[in-house]
Parts: sequence; structure tokens; C-alpha cells
Amino acid sequence: MAKELKELTKRSDNYSQWYNDLVVKANLAEQSAVRGCMVIKPYGYAIWENIQAQLDKMFKATGAQNAYFPLLIPKNFLSREAEHVKGFAKECAVVTHYRLKASEGGNSVEIDPTAKLEEELIIRPTSETIIWNTYRNWIHSWRDLPLMCNQWCNVMRWEMRTRPFLRTAEFLWQEGHTAHATREEAEEEARKMLDVYVEFAEKWLAIPVVQGVKSEHERFAGALDTYTIEAMMQDGKALQSGTSHFLGQNFAKSFDVTFLNKDNKPEYVWATSWGLSTRLIGALIMTHSDDNGLVLPPKIAPIQVVVIPIFKGDEQLYEISQKLKPVINELREAGITVKFDDADNKRPGFKFSDYELKGVPVRLAMGGRDLENNTIEIMRRDTLEKENLSFDGIVQRVKDLLVNVQENIYQKAKKFRDARIYECDDYEEFKTRIKDGGFFLCHWDGTPETEEKIKEETQATIRCVPFMFEQTEGIDMVSGKPSKQRVLLARAY
Amino acid sequence: MAKELKELTKRSDNYSQWYNDLVVKANLAEQSAVRGCMVIKPYGYAIWENIQAQLDKMFKATGAQNAYFPLLIPKNFLSREAEHVKGFAKECAVVTHYRLKASEGGNSVEIDPTAKLEEELIIRPTSETIIWNTYRNWIHSWRDLPLMCNQWCNVMRWEMRTRPFLRTAEFLWQEGHTAHATREEAEEEARKMLDVYVEFAEKWLAIPVVQGVKSEHERFAGALDTYTIEAMMQDGKALQSGTSHFLGQNFAKSFDVTFLNKDNKPEYVWATSWGLSTRLIGALIMTHSDDNGLVLPPKIAPIQVVVIPIFKGDEQLYEISQKLKPVINELREAGITVKFDDADNKRPGFKFSDYELKGVPVRLAMGGRDLENNTIEIMRRDTLEKENLSFDGIVQRVKDLLVNVQENIYQKAKKFRDARIYECDDYEEFKTRIKDGGFFLCHWDGTPETEEKIKEETQATIRCVPFMFEQTEGIDMVSGKPSKQRVLLARAY
Repeated sequence: MAKELKELTKRSDNYSQWYNDLVVKANLAEQSAVRGCMVIKPYGYAIWENIQAQLDKMFKATGAQNAYFPLLIPKNFLSREAEHVKGFAKECAVVTHYRLKASEGGNSVEIDPTAKLEEELIIRPTSETIIWNTYRNWIHSWRDLPLMCNQWCNVMRWEMRTRPFLRTAEFLWQEGHTAHATREEAEEEARKMLDVYVEFAEKWLAIPVVQGVKSEHERFAGALDTYTIEAMMQDGKALQSGTSHFLGQNFAKSFDVTFLNKDNKPEYVWATSWGLSTRLIGALIMTHSDDNGLVLPPKIAPIQVVVIPIFKGDEQLYEISQKLKPVINELREAGITVKFDDADNKRPGFKFSDYELKGVPVRLAMGGRDLENNTIEIMRRDTLEKENLSFDGIVQRVKDLLVNVQENIYQKAKKFRDARIYECDDYEEFKTRIKDGGFFLCHWDGTPETEEKIKEETQATIRCVPFMFEQTEGIDMVSGKPSKQRVLLARAY
Repeated sequence: MAKELKELTKRSDNYSQWYNDLVVKANLAEQSAVRGCMVIKPYGYAIWENIQAQLDKMFKATGAQNAYFPLLIPKNFLSREAEHVKGFAKECAVVTHYRLKASEGGNSVEIDPTAKLEEELIIRPTSETIIWNTYRNWIHSWRDLPLMCNQWCNVMRWEMRTRPFLRTAEFLWQEGHTAHATREEAEEEARKMLDVYVEFAEKWLAIPVVQGVKSEHERFAGALDTYTIEAMMQDGKALQSGTSHFLGQNFAKSFDVTFLNKDNKPEYVWATSWGLSTRLIGALIMTHSDDNGLVLPPKIAPIQVVVIPIFKGDEQLYEISQKLKPVINELREAGITVKFDDADNKRPGFKFSDYELKGVPVRLAMGGRDLENNTIEIMRRDTLEKENLSFDGIVQRVKDLLVNVQENIYQKAKKFRDARIYECDDYEEFKTRIKDGGFFLCHWDGTPETEEKIKEETQATIRCVPFMFEQTEGIDMVSGKPSKQRVLLARAY
């Protein structure tokens, strides 16, 4: 492992390779035998479990309930909403048969041609269609509204170029689907869930995000508005980290979902959907980590504190362990996840590197001299700063440090990002500067033609019309036409 | 709902219909648009979440970690283990294409024939094959063992006759997959996980189970031994509620997974797998519930206590609510899930029936007279007994009652079951009595021929060789040949 660590590519040498290396070496995930699908290893999955646990609480606090809808969707459902099918048909995995049989000779299996489905089924790329087909039977009157369901599940989009966490054929996510009596309420819900995503990204993952609304071209297939949170990675590229959609009455109309309003008249239901996926783990890696490995925010780290005794022989190990035990217990009682690593087949230096690679926020180490002096060594992963402290009061010190690391990595990421948000009014300048990454606030005339031209010539896309900056009118930097607002342009993952 | 409740079929009229009714009327699940696949509704899913939360803790306490492996499995993987493919090939959903395109005319979509997969992929019916293919790269030396992963996921088995929870094409489950250095350790692990299942079924779900080992014919496809827990439903039929398999070296050999032992010699790895699914919710329903609806064990109920104010007008509601608030808060602080239902558009009688239907273990109700008298009504769902109690000390009373209900429904189910476990040595008698249900302990000569004959003639199967009864030698009731043990025979779901 110490050897493997050495081989982690430096970010400055090849950012993309550094990312791929780190995912594998930190034991987060690996490619599987199935094209584009990854295995999420226990350490990576533990991060996902922590993400789930916190988000799930936040969703439930808004009144959403979890449910489960089928993996497979009848092919014809997809066609019902015209934009939706355009968006997803090209990347659907299709189930055509429901049985295999022994092939002649008997050494392998082949499709049983007599077991062909009458109608093909697709593996859900997202579940609006099957859920709205179900909601039709659940919603009759205004009293049944709002209806707010979330599901944690796997989805599949047959992407041609995949990268672990960032873009995989199968991924894990949550998808919320809500139904409302009025347009206003649905719009408010879509914005409220975006706020939940913002809070989660910033307070828990320590990732500063820009909130905004997508251009028509970048909208979710079937939405009237897509709200997004966009994070900046260390290479200055954007990563869309969560989206919330105001779907209007599109799916209600496609699946005939109406309710009787208070005047007893039928109306179509208003909808939202909102989703966030294992992609977020990619964002987490690329926002905070460094050439030594992962840097994880304490609030989401599977191991928050690692405690390493440095010992020669069982007797010294026993003494050090006895000294450390009350501290470990006290930390655990405070809800902190502590790993005590007294394995005797790995040297302390190896362990240090390994937990740095894994991004454990705080490390405590104690050796024979510490025992004599009543001291302990504490290291913070974010800055790699070490201190030798009095053993007394160490519990409070660790608690404070965890809070401090959480805040520090957020501020560091925010400072990094804020220094790379530029206003730009000159397209030639833009074309040059975009190569170095960053978020560009530029005037846009609102036409898809300009948007397309920028994308073709610079690979930058309109990430959103951001909410966080005051909007002024101006002149589109490409077309020279009038513009109502600046949009956020960036190259993106 | 009161009306719907009335329409719940009586168990004595039609047990099967009662079950189907109850699943729908208690809002647990419903059929989806996809054959054999159900929608698990929020109330049903909340039960599953509680099952997951508790089991997950128990798994982690044994050292297992969660991970995630791909949904899709290359077809050829299935063929590698000869028994495994026989067991699952006939019920596999097969993905053959990865893209749809607009059909001519443009109103629908059809398969894009140019997007045919080189090798078909199957939707996992269980994940031994893809996991052991992955373990090959994770296991090198004895130091990498034991390796214990669990995953919570969906699986698919194309069953022809389906029933909600009991048998569905898609279902949710957990599957644990462990790798060990020795045969003994793997066998111990398989038994240990069976113990976890027993503890969970009995202590949490209040379902008494018979533990045992399956006959060769009933084993998991690819296992050397399958351990099982078998529960008795109210109609006397058995329901297999969880299985743990000792897989020997079968999958290690099929996927070439070896490790260097302490003598630095390569050996094949020893394996187990163990799984428990949403089927358990069916067991829960059919063990405890009655003609009024669900009866849920307090430890797993989504709502443990419902509090219903009985009021005329806002002022009285306010007074009653103020009186109840400290009680509700105190219960919640003790970790009890309380629903306070002050909806004014439903009458108390309707609410009472509704929460009975939903199986809420304890109901508190308070009206104007209670307010005057400092009393409160408490009802327990299992016996439907009501009491009018002094308001003082009600919190402790509720806590005690929850414990009491949990224990009582377990004892009731156990008494019911124990009264229906029979020793039987006469096949003619067996053929008659099996029609009324029950578990029969009968001598069996150990041959598949006898097993098959019994199944054909009586629809009863060998559920297991049970661990809980002392074994004596005897004479097979069918063949008259010598028998080493009594086995548990029953008709089963």
C-alpha cells in the first residue's frame, strides 16, 4: 500500500489520471466485468451510506416518504412524454426475453427464443413514467395532495464513455417525485428541494455550489424548468451535483393524472422531480483531495478519527491501549466514528500513509515517549499539520478539530472557486481563458444558436442562470445581440 | 376507508383473499403495470426500512461491510457453476440491446437493431457469480480473509405465478457473500448468520421459526448445505423466511479464487452466502394479522403509538392538544414513533378503524370527558382491549404496553405453531391431515424418490431437517425403509 501510494499520479501531472488512480487506490470503486458498470467497494459504499443517512433525514423533514417502484418500465411508457423519450431512448438497456436455456452441447446457456416478451421492457433510466402511471390511481381529490415520494435505487443509462462515479452505465441515486394541486406549490417544492441539496452540499460535503436554473437546452427531458447545483472541481471544471425539476403538467397529461379541486372540478396535477446520485462521491473527491490521497469532510467520513498506538511488544501495546481506551470510548459515546488500529503486521509509517490516502480527518498517535510524558500526537488530514499535545483534554481537542477541519475545507474550496469566477465580455478572451478552467459569467442572448456555437467552439456549456449574482442587462459576447442576464459558462464533467 | 375496511375478506372465508385484500387496503403494496412486479407503497416500505435498519446493525456487528455490485451479469458467468445455472437460467430477464430509436411515423419507440450487445446480460437473480468474479482480484493471501460483504439491492427472478411480497418477479433483499480460509470457518459463518436471522425473526418480528438444514433437492443452486428458517402461517403452511448457504469451494473453483495460505501454498477459498428479502413482510402479515387488519410487532411498526384527540371545535382541540403534548414529547424522546392525528376531516371512529387496519400497536384517545377527569383511553391492537386510565403515569404505561404487545404476539404465534407440530408415522394419516396444514415431523429414508412422491401426492415438501428436536432413528412412513431422522414436512408458500 505504501508502494501503491507512491504511485498516485500528481494532480499537476495529470488531473484525470490522479482521479482514476485515487478511486482505485483508496478502495472506493473499481471497474466491473460489465462495460461501464462499477463495483462500489466497502469504503466507497460507506461514504454513500453516510450521504444517504443524512439526505434521507432531510427529505423526511420536508414530508417526503420513501417507496419503491419497479426496475423495469414498459417500452411504450417512455413514448408518452415526447421530450422525455427523446432524452432517454438512446441510452436504454432493453429486456427482450425472460428465460435462458442450455445451449446444444450443454456447456453454456443461450436465449430461449420461445420466451420473448410481448412488449420489451427497459431498465429505468429515471422513473417519472412508471411513477406517474402509478400516481394516477393514488390521486383523486385535492385531499390526496401533495403526494411526495422518494426512492433510493439503481438506474441505468447506457453511456458510451464512462468514469467511476462521474458517469457510469448503472448508478445509485435517489429520485423524489412529488404531485401538487397548484403550479405555485410545485414550483416552490422544486426550489425547496434545491435548497435541501445546497444545504447538504455545503454543510455536509463542504462543497460550495452555485445554484441556478438551466437553459432550455440543458433541461431535464420533460421538465419546464431544471434547477441545478454546480460545483467547481480543482481543475476549474464544473460538476453538476444535483438537480430539481419543475415538470409542470407534462407527466400528468401524458399519464392522465387528474384530481378534483375544491370546486369539485378535475384538473391536471403539477409535478416535480429531484435527484442526486453516487456522482456526488466524484465531486467530493475532486473538490477536496490532494496528492497524498483523499481529504474527506468529517461529517461524511466513514472513519472520523484513527488512533494508532506505536509500540514494541505486547506489553507496551497493552499499556498504550489502556491509556487510550477511555479517550476512544468517550469519543465513541459522543457519536464519533473511531478506528483503533493496533495491527502488528504493518508499520506505523505504513498506517499513516494509508489513512492519509483514505482521507481520515484526524489521526491520533501515541508511542512510548508519549506515555512517559503524558502527551499524544494529533494530525489533521486537511493541512497535514501535526502537534504534540498534552494527553489531558484531548477529547475536546479532537471534537474541536473535527469542526475546524469541516469548516476549513469548505472555506478553502470556496476561496479556490471564488477566485475562479470571472466576468467576461469578450468572446476571444473567453476562448483563451476557458482552457484554464473556471466559471465565466457572460451575457447571453438567450438563443440556442449562440449556446450551440459556444459549445462547439470551446466545449463550454451554460451551466445555469445563477441565482447568486445580481443580474444586469448587457450585450451577448458572441452574437452582439441584447442580453437580459449573465449566465454561468464552464467546461463540465 | 371505513367502507373499505368492512370489505376486508375474513380469514375463515378465504385466507388467500384476505391476504391479498390486506396488502392493498393497508397500503402496503400494489400490482404495477409490469407483470409480476409490485409497487411497495410508503407504509409497506417503512416496514422494510425498519427491517433494514435493524438487520444492517446486526450484520455489521458480525464484521460484514456493505458494498454494491452490478445489476447486470454477463450471460456466460451463469454457466460457470453447473448447478447454479440449472437453478436460475429458467427465470432470467435478459438484456439484449442498449438503445431504442423512434419508430417510423415517430409515435413510438422500437429497438435499434444496430445496438445489439455482443454478449447478452442478465439481470441478477442473485449475485454469487459477479461477486466471486470480483473477489478473485480482492483475495491474494490468508491476510485478506475473511472477506465479508453484504449488499442491499433488487433482484429479479421471472416467476410465473406471483403474489405481493411472497413471490414477485422483482424483489428487494440483502445478500451477504463471505470468503474464508477454511471449511470450518465458512460452515461456522453460515450457521452464525442463520442465528442472526433467527434472532431477528423471533425478537424483532415476533415470528417463531424452525431452524434446520435443507434436503439436497431443496438446496440453493450451487450450495453444499442450505440452512433455513421456516415460519408457520395462520393457515398452517410454511414460509421459508431466510436462508444461509455453505457454498464450499464451488464458486471459488468456478471463478478461480485462490489464496496463499500461511505455508505460502495456493488454496481455493471457502464461501457462504445468506439472504433475506421483502418476502419477510408477507410472513409478518400472515403470522400476526387478523380480520380487522394488520397486527405489527411494536419493534418494527412504522407508527408505534397513535394519539387521537376527540374534539368539538378548535378550542377543545387546543386544550386536549396542550394536555397531550408533554406525553407525546416524552414518548418521542424515548425513541418511540408517535403519530398525533388531529385531522378534522375524519371522524374518530374512522380513524380508529384505519389505525387498526394499519396495525398500529398502541392507540391513545382523549376527549372532553377525559380532560375533565384527567383520564385517557389506551387500546392495544393485538387483543383490541381498551382501558380508561389515569392520565398520570401514562408514558410509562405506554412503554410497558409496547413491550407487552411485542412479547404477547410472539407467544401467541408460538402457541399456535407449537400446537400444530405433529409427529406422524402413517402416510395415509399424513395425506389426510396435511390438508389442514401444520408441520409434520416424519421419518424419511433420505432418498429423492420418496421426497418427490410425497410432493406429488400431497404438495408437501421437506422444509428442513430441524435442529430443534432430538433425532431418533425409525422407519420411513412412505417407503418403509430405515430412516436416520425425522424431517419437517409441510405445504409451503
